[in-house]
Amino acid sequence: MTYCVAMRLSSGMIFVSDSRTNAGVDHISSFRKLHVFQVNDERTLVLQSAGNLATTQSVMSLLRRNCEDDNQPNLLNGKSLYDVALLVGDTLREVIRRDGEEFGGSLLLGGQIRGEEPRLFQIYPQGNFIEASVDTPYFQIGESKYGKPIIDRVLRFETPLSQAMQCALISMDSTLASNISVGLPLDAMVYRSDSFSDSEQYHITDQHPYFSQIRQLWSKGLLSVFSQLPPLQL
Amino acid sequence: MTYCVAMRLSSGMIFVSDSRTNAGVDHISSFRKLHVFQVNDERTLVLQSAGNLATTQSVMSLLRRNCEDDNQPNLLNGKSLYDVALLVGDTLREVIRRDGEEFGGSLLLGGQIRGEEPRLFQIYPQGNFIEASVDTPYFQIGESKYGKPIIDRVLRFETPLSQAMQCALISMDSTLASNISVGLPLDAMVYRSDSFSDSEQYHITDQHPYFSQIRQLWSKGLLSVFSQLPPLQL
Repeated sequence: MTYCVAMRLSSGMIFVSDSRTNAGVDHISSFRKLHVFQVNDERTLVLQSAGNLATTQSVMSLLRRNCEDDNQPNLLNGKSLYDVALLVGDTLREVIRRDGEEFGGSLLLGGQIRGEEPRLFQIYPQGNFIEASVDTPYFQIGESKYGKPIIDRVLRFETPLSQAMQCALISMDSTLASNISVGLPLDAMVYRSDSFSDSEQYHITDQHPYFSQIRQLWSKGLLSVFSQLPPLQL
Repeated sequence: MTYCVAMRLSSGMIFVSDSRTNAGVDHISSFRKLHVFQVNDERTLVLQSAGNLATTQSVMSLLRRNCEDDNQPNLLNGKSLYDVALLVGDTLREVIRRDGEEFGGSLLLGGQIRGEEPRLFQIYPQGNFIEASVDTPYFQIGESKYGKPIIDRVLRFETPLSQAMQCALISMDSTLASNISVGLPLDAMVYRSDSFSDSEQYHITDQHPYFSQIRQLWSKGLLSVFSQLPPLQL
């Protein structure tokens, strides 16, 4: 499986993906699930994928190939992020129609095209999609439930990007702890509104000093809060 | 949906269930999902149910009716908890075969019969089942993922019952916060090994002083631990 989370906040966006894919217990591998399409000073697009690896790899291959032909709609010439979401949704729908409904997948598409605010879409296997809002500033795909409570507690539209990234990493930690099908390394990216830059990308392995540090502090902190709860009174 | 958790620990057992069921957004109701069968000084059995309400209610009705006829195997005359699990699994399988596979359900069966240690089983819609062990001392059914990370962090086979109940309540709180289909009131029960008693049962509404208190303390504590994480360094 997979866990990807994306946040669209007042000052920019946060993207974090794990990299584990599995097809039965004997086939556990790592593949990148965070893909960046960049035109300096004009657009930064980020796609995250979950679901069947054949399906999502096919979608990414087709989207990349499209980018070579400027005469047809593609990720680099779409006028708005909505247009790009339509294209991605159509491509996902086509691949699933070709390969079979049992090979589903879903995608997160976020970023900014000059002339628009940053936007974030969640694209379903059926090809349709929803957009994040001030009230619902984040989306998750894949094994999303383990890491949802901490995001619901912490994240608001106004949360600063650095705190939001901490929150995404803690959410990932909760998922890693409870589900063996989600695994390191992580791909993470910070996008600052109106920067049109993909320069803040990070690859986080189990050796990463900051991630290791906050995982330990979080675990210790939780156990400490738990041990300080008042004695049971029912 | 539903969230039920049961723990089988060195000094006894813990059971907590929510009580929300829904059939579409217009039909959200509360039904008890924790059922106790008691023969003083001889056996205490607890069943928790998740899934289609028609299915799980039918199973409970059939199991109760069986108890009136001592000439056939029933919950009150089964020689071991394994025998009882077989009976419950057969009944669940029969109801699902009768009503249709789309109306699935699953059950947790825990308790103690004189002559045995306390035991805990998770019973699948197919009627087969697994048993909790020292390494895996708890089972969950229903919306289990939101509340799993805190249990994985805290719970061990040797955890005292009072702490285990705190852990179950916090796990329930995480689920309540992230999933509207799980709702108060809760049914909770503590079973102490060799007590053969069902006296420690609790009904926990949103007015419950202790549950309200630890929910608040837990939320505050988490936010405090989060805010004390070292500044982001990627």
